[in-house]
Amino acid sequence: MTSQIEYPYLPIPAGDIGLLTDFYELTMAQSYFAEGMDGQATFSLYVREYPPDRGYMVAAGVDDALDCLEALSFNDAAVDYLRDTGVFTEEFLDYLRGFRFSGSVRAMPEGSLFFTEEPILEVTAPVIAAQLAETIVINQVQYQSLLATKSARCVDAADGRPLADFAARRTHGSEASLRMARASYVAGFGATSNVLAARRYGIPPTGTMAHSYITSFDHEVDAFRAYARRFPDRSILLLDTYDTINAAHIAVDVANEMESEGHRLTGVRLDSGDFDDLSRQVRRILDDAGLDYVRIVASGGLDEYELERLIQGGAPIDMFGVGTRVGVSADAPYCDMVYKMVCYDGRPVMKLSAGKASLPGGKQVFRLRDADGNMAGDVIALEDERLDIGEPLLTLAMADGRRSLPPSPIDAARQRVADGLAALPAGHRRLRAPKRYPVSVSDGVQRLDKQIRRELAGGGTQ
Amino acid sequence: MTSQIEYPYLPIPAGDIGLLTDFYELTMAQSYFAEGMDGQATFSLYVREYPPDRGYMVAAGVDDALDCLEALSFNDAAVDYLRDTGVFTEEFLDYLRGFRFSGSVRAMPEGSLFFTEEPILEVTAPVIAAQLAETIVINQVQYQSLLATKSARCVDAADGRPLADFAARRTHGSEASLRMARASYVAGFGATSNVLAARRYGIPPTGTMAHSYITSFDHEVDAFRAYARRFPDRSILLLDTYDTINAAHIAVDVANEMESEGHRLTGVRLDSGDFDDLSRQVRRILDDAGLDYVRIVASGGLDEYELERLIQGGAPIDMFGVGTRVGVSADAPYCDMVYKMVCYDGRPVMKLSAGKASLPGGKQVFRLRDADGNMAGDVIALEDERLDIGEPLLTLAMADGRRSLPPSPIDAARQRVADGLAALPAGHRRLRAPKRYPVSVSDGVQRLDKQIRRELAGGGTQ
Repeated sequence: MTSQIEYPYLPIPAGDIGLLTDFYELTMAQSYFAEGMDGQATFSLYVREYPPDRGYMVAAGVDDALDCLEALSFNDAAVDYLRDTGVFTEEFLDYLRGFRFSGSVRAMPEGSLFFTEEPILEVTAPVIAAQLAETIVINQVQYQSLLATKSARCVDAADGRPLADFAARRTHGSEASLRMARASYVAGFGATSNVLAARRYGIPPTGTMAHSYITSFDHEVDAFRAYARRFPDRSILLLDTYDTINAAHIAVDVANEMESEGHRLTGVRLDSGDFDDLSRQVRRILDDAGLDYVRIVASGGLDEYELERLIQGGAPIDMFGVGTRVGVSADAPYCDMVYKMVCYDGRPVMKLSAGKASLPGGKQVFRLRDADGNMAGDVIALEDERLDIGEPLLTLAMADGRRSLPPSPIDAARQRVADGLAALPAGHRRLRAPKRYPVSVSDGVQRLDKQIRRELAGGGTQ
Repeated sequence: MTSQIEYPYLPIPAGDIGLLTDFYELTMAQSYFAEGMDGQATFSLYVREYPPDRGYMVAAGVDDALDCLEALSFNDAAVDYLRDTGVFTEEFLDYLRGFRFSGSVRAMPEGSLFFTEEPILEVTAPVIAAQLAETIVINQVQYQSLLATKSARCVDAADGRPLADFAARRTHGSEASLRMARASYVAGFGATSNVLAARRYGIPPTGTMAHSYITSFDHEVDAFRAYARRFPDRSILLLDTYDTINAAHIAVDVANEMESEGHRLTGVRLDSGDFDDLSRQVRRILDDAGLDYVRIVASGGLDEYELERLIQGGAPIDMFGVGTRVGVSADAPYCDMVYKMVCYDGRPVMKLSAGKASLPGGKQVFRLRDADGNMAGDVIALEDERLDIGEPLLTLAMADGRRSLPPSPIDAARQRVADGLAALPAGHRRLRAPKRYPVSVSDGVQRLDKQIRRELAGGGTQ
């Protein structure tokens, strides 16, 4: 199997990326331009609060965000459209025509575990460029990190059993389907049903058969036989079109026919009903027929909670197809990921909005480990603060608008998640009410926070 | 303002659309091909159950699905990739190389209201083509209909006050951000912050300013003044960066300065805190300063429930920016939309899976109206059943793989939603526990259902 990794895969045509922004980014940019404000700004991307029941998150979409920033520009059609709005000056439109994203980005690598308040990436650029990057950076990193996080929870819950991504039809669009396949593979899934994603990212493709396949034959057994004839070494027969137990007996007959031809039925799939009960009944039917090698696959409505329930209950299911609920991160389809200015023109800044205050200054995150190598806590420090502790997580990913490093190969990102989860104590990985991972704020950040609050209270905003 | 409507806007490069499918569609296709099964199949796209608290749904994404079907083909790179998987025969790969989607589609027009069990569209094509269409059709129609439905509920709740789409950063990718802007405009929103979507769909762009804009100035008042200087006739000042009430007083000063220059401050924006309380305080501050023309905009965490609460409570808010919760349809990020074979080679078919049975046969939906023109119930009938009642909703949208009609202009789709909601009795539009809209099944469908069940029970599947 060829592993074709195609980079970059921009979500929309490169010439359109400049416009993939909120209108206010452009009106603010015109104001900065008119005021002659071209100071360097640093923006920090982080999550304020965990989604429900999350004790950690997995960074994904960082490389896609960087691809978008490399392409961020305004073609003639974009400039013409902006002129038509009547809001922008010719001088500013000329500026946009020559605009390229020229900033630097420090980021956690794809697949890193991160926690609340920690910058996943920081953009430093002339304020207009840094501001124009906001929408696309959040757009790409937020949902992909949610999908990777949800997928990692499923991998944990599946306790070693293989998982496949079946979400393509339920994700929010085709772009999301590709990113879901990628995020779930990075999180530890073994395969995807999404053929384009399989090709693009080098993920093994997988699939069985649909109910429509069965109903297009006059008899269920005809459908099973036809499939087995065509794919004698990779047939997984779908049992629930009419009656699961009845179909299991038919599958036994077909498996016996296959044996007589020197082949083995790979598996059977359950797609509705009570998986715990049905899997036990079907396992018994298969075993009684001497077909202990036939594997049972379950799909339909699965998520980490259901996987945990089935596996802890001892349901004899060998593989799972996971779709809808993970592909939209159903219990947490969004999170509070924000992109906040922390420094402008050498001056640390912050906002104080009710419940949404930010920490001032460019930052670094240090990860501490115990004697066994397990993760023992993170420290959020100032970018230039020298702490002789732990491992710094943000590294230079882009300078002068160009990648400093090639994107993480998907297998490297996948290994990073596996290593991260192996080092994260179980309490933080619990599916419900996880223990809070200790994240502290360095003395330098605390001092700066106090200083800026004092200045603001002293009338700095009047 | 130019209204540039660009069709088609494919979500991924046209040459890749063939692979945007689940792997099993291709293995089933190879089996059909090998068995010489090329009968016409009809598949029906419908929703089995309403998402929570929904009493109706709005069809969106139908035109995008049709665009994808027109482009559905396999280029050399796609065929080469499939060969590399080792699963497909050269004969089948040759067939795919020449494949074009050649089917017909009957569909409800974009913006139609639909209810459970009703086909939104039906595809009739040689079984391989109809099967290969499944993933992309569900992928496009499901989430866009969810977004349009959620948006329509917000429009209802806002009771005439203008809404703007602010969701771009929280949707699941850039494709979803474009579709959200479109779906929300179709549902009745007045504007979008998403510049690319505004251009592509001819939606008015809108925006204010971000907290970062404020923090990049030494003083809040400097930021307000700079913005007002640049946009003297379209300034909406953001109040909550440091302290909302304090900022409201500063905004009054700036508005007075603007008046002395012959301009008027357009509005102020609240983005955090208790909107009900803050909007009353800010309204009073503005009114006391003689600035009754300055409008109050609120944004942040809004959805139909919060809009209803604020408006029924009398909060003096004039416009709303709606983002995250609507852009991911947060309380219902997926629904049970399925694409089921209902006819194969002239033979009506159905599945009986637990809780997931389908109705056999190609269908038409008739909408009944009372004497006042209000919607009084729908009837699901067989496609060829002649009922002298109501208006048929499915019309021919594609024949021989080519559109029979141009896509619905966005304003026509928008009018269709407005007309639909105006004709739908209020009980079905309630935000919580809506009254169930009456959908009945014709005698013809009932007879066919019984007949097929009898045949299946008679051993048809053995």
